[in-house]
Amino acid sequence: MSTGEHAIGVTYLSQEDLLEAGCLDLGLAVDTVHDALLANRKGRVLFPEKIVQIFDEDTQERINCLPATLHDEKVCGVKWVSVFPENVAEGRQNLTALFVLSEIEAGYPFAVMEGTLASNVRVGAMAGLAGRYLAPEHAETIGFIGSGEQAKMNLLAFKSVRPSLARCRVCAKTTEEEEQFVRELSPLLPDMELEIAETDGERATSDADILVTATSAQAPLLKADWMKPGAFYNHVGGWEDEYEVAKRCDKIVCDDWETVKHRTQTLSRMYQDGELTDDDVDGDLVEIVAGDRPGRESDDERIYFDAVGLAYVDIAIALAMYRRAVEAGKGRELPMQRSMIFEHERLSDYVRL
Amino acid sequence: MSTGEHAIGVTYLSQEDLLEAGCLDLGLAVDTVHDALLANRKGRVLFPEKIVQIFDEDTQERINCLPATLHDEKVCGVKWVSVFPENVAEGRQNLTALFVLSEIEAGYPFAVMEGTLASNVRVGAMAGLAGRYLAPEHAETIGFIGSGEQAKMNLLAFKSVRPSLARCRVCAKTTEEEEQFVRELSPLLPDMELEIAETDGERATSDADILVTATSAQAPLLKADWMKPGAFYNHVGGWEDEYEVAKRCDKIVCDDWETVKHRTQTLSRMYQDGELTDDDVDGDLVEIVAGDRPGRESDDERIYFDAVGLAYVDIAIALAMYRRAVEAGKGRELPMQRSMIFEHERLSDYVRL
Repeated sequence: MSTGEHAIGVTYLSQEDLLEAGCLDLGLAVDTVHDALLANRKGRVLFPEKIVQIFDEDTQERINCLPATLHDEKVCGVKWVSVFPENVAEGRQNLTALFVLSEIEAGYPFAVMEGTLASNVRVGAMAGLAGRYLAPEHAETIGFIGSGEQAKMNLLAFKSVRPSLARCRVCAKTTEEEEQFVRELSPLLPDMELEIAETDGERATSDADILVTATSAQAPLLKADWMKPGAFYNHVGGWEDEYEVAKRCDKIVCDDWETVKHRTQTLSRMYQDGELTDDDVDGDLVEIVAGDRPGRESDDERIYFDAVGLAYVDIAIALAMYRRAVEAGKGRELPMQRSMIFEHERLSDYVRL
Repeated sequence: MSTGEHAIGVTYLSQEDLLEAGCLDLGLAVDTVHDALLANRKGRVLFPEKIVQIFDEDTQERINCLPATLHDEKVCGVKWVSVFPENVAEGRQNLTALFVLSEIEAGYPFAVMEGTLASNVRVGAMAGLAGRYLAPEHAETIGFIGSGEQAKMNLLAFKSVRPSLARCRVCAKTTEEEEQFVRELSPLLPDMELEIAETDGERATSDADILVTATSAQAPLLKADWMKPGAFYNHVGGWEDEYEVAKRCDKIVCDDWETVKHRTQTLSRMYQDGELTDDDVDGDLVEIVAGDRPGRESDDERIYFDAVGLAYVDIAIALAMYRRAVEAGKGRELPMQRSMIFEHERLSDYVRL
């Protein structure tokens, strides 16, 4: 009738715990993505197909369940993430995520974490890693179509890998949204000049070294003529650029082209419409990271990057954040069980038949 | 720059919170299983295929991820459960589970719960519901082969639906395990006589009105000759009874025969070996619950029940436990986020590039 011997507990981390511990660290995140891609390439990752539960076919409100295992870390985790596009109109976040991490020696959970931060950081960090290899080396100007949470994290990520960035122009559906973007991001990037584009996509992107679209538009907002030679384009959303953008690019790189093919991004549509073939795609980012393919080869190349998201990268970033937060003394210890169920001394007081 | 408006929090419940709130309530659980089966039959449940991640092919150590949605409750949840058979030899639990529950209006999580209790209660409660319709009405004796956590929960569940039970005999691999079973369960069932069978399966089962096998044996431990006419047999584990047991039964009922077919239980093996056909199976428990098929029809029938487990039932039980625990004032409120990421007032102090 011991208590203690079979006790299990988890560490709980809120978003504020993570922020205060310095986990909004795009440099750490980009390096973590780098290592995770290579670990997967070595076969050290389990990465099952995600489970999608759609609650409303019209609004596409859903919760996705994305587990993965990092064998080298002896950690298996799950990202539990809701996608509620209708939230945005009400000023609320579209994505809300939570992570559970378990060790795989006895199978016990050890962490429950707020996960919107890690999830959004992952989107930015994957783009940042692509930018490290593919963006102009001395990029000075970045332009955004879309001003939401993903756009904001993209700006931090690109600034992390291209500290030379000095100017940012942002285009959104309304100037109010653009102003909010500038108001929130300016204090974080004191050496950058942030400007609104007054809903003019051309103004936001036409002299940009790095272009980002991050919208829920489902329309060809970005025009090929706006992308100057030598620019790097990061595509975050679904359909948000005209087909000519990809056609005019010298390189097209994905996080996982085989997965992109079957989704609903612009490249997916082009592939499904017969406007893009396997030969048009220069492969996956990990091949460049591993040195099997070149990154940027000239100052004039236009390069297109598209990521669908890889759940094991989310788990890797959550784990890196967990470690940093625990090192910083953040989080609270939660008892999960003091003993096995039938070892509880007062169980006869509790049981009901 | 508000805080509060976009705050999200969850209620955390440990196993002790749940126990102290009276959630180890087999009556509540059996009723919850009943309602969940009917809700699924009405098409009010999303129930995707589980994700299994196996870490070691030899030991079959794994973590399973089982999400489901209860539309009538407007709740989507996931059971995150590790199965580490090697734990048992070290006196630790095989299964360790945790639940996350989310509402599906905005997609926010509202509960994180210790889940081994709910998961094990579900196994018992499904058996209990089957027993309500299929066990002898005035059952007095119950016999167990296997004495682990599932066996213990089965005893509570059958006592809940058949209060007439007065005697229990338990057979395990060692008398020490049998003695532990008797020591732990006797205080919970003061009006029952619990006896060890000294590792003799026949002694445990041969005069039992209800028989339960709950082992990890993968061997035909239960013999057909030991099952008396009129008895009800609940099969919990994998392969643990000789084929003749099912062949001699007058009714075979499952929680979900179409799923059982493709697993590794005794009935699955028989089906795959051509020793059992669809016609030999009397269908799923829900058909009896709904009144479309009869339950027990005579005092002499031998009836066989086999459950593979249905994740939406786990979610329903976790939700019922959550509600009872919150009503009892148990659990702790955990902040998940105070505001959206870029609304945090001190973000410039935290961000690292």
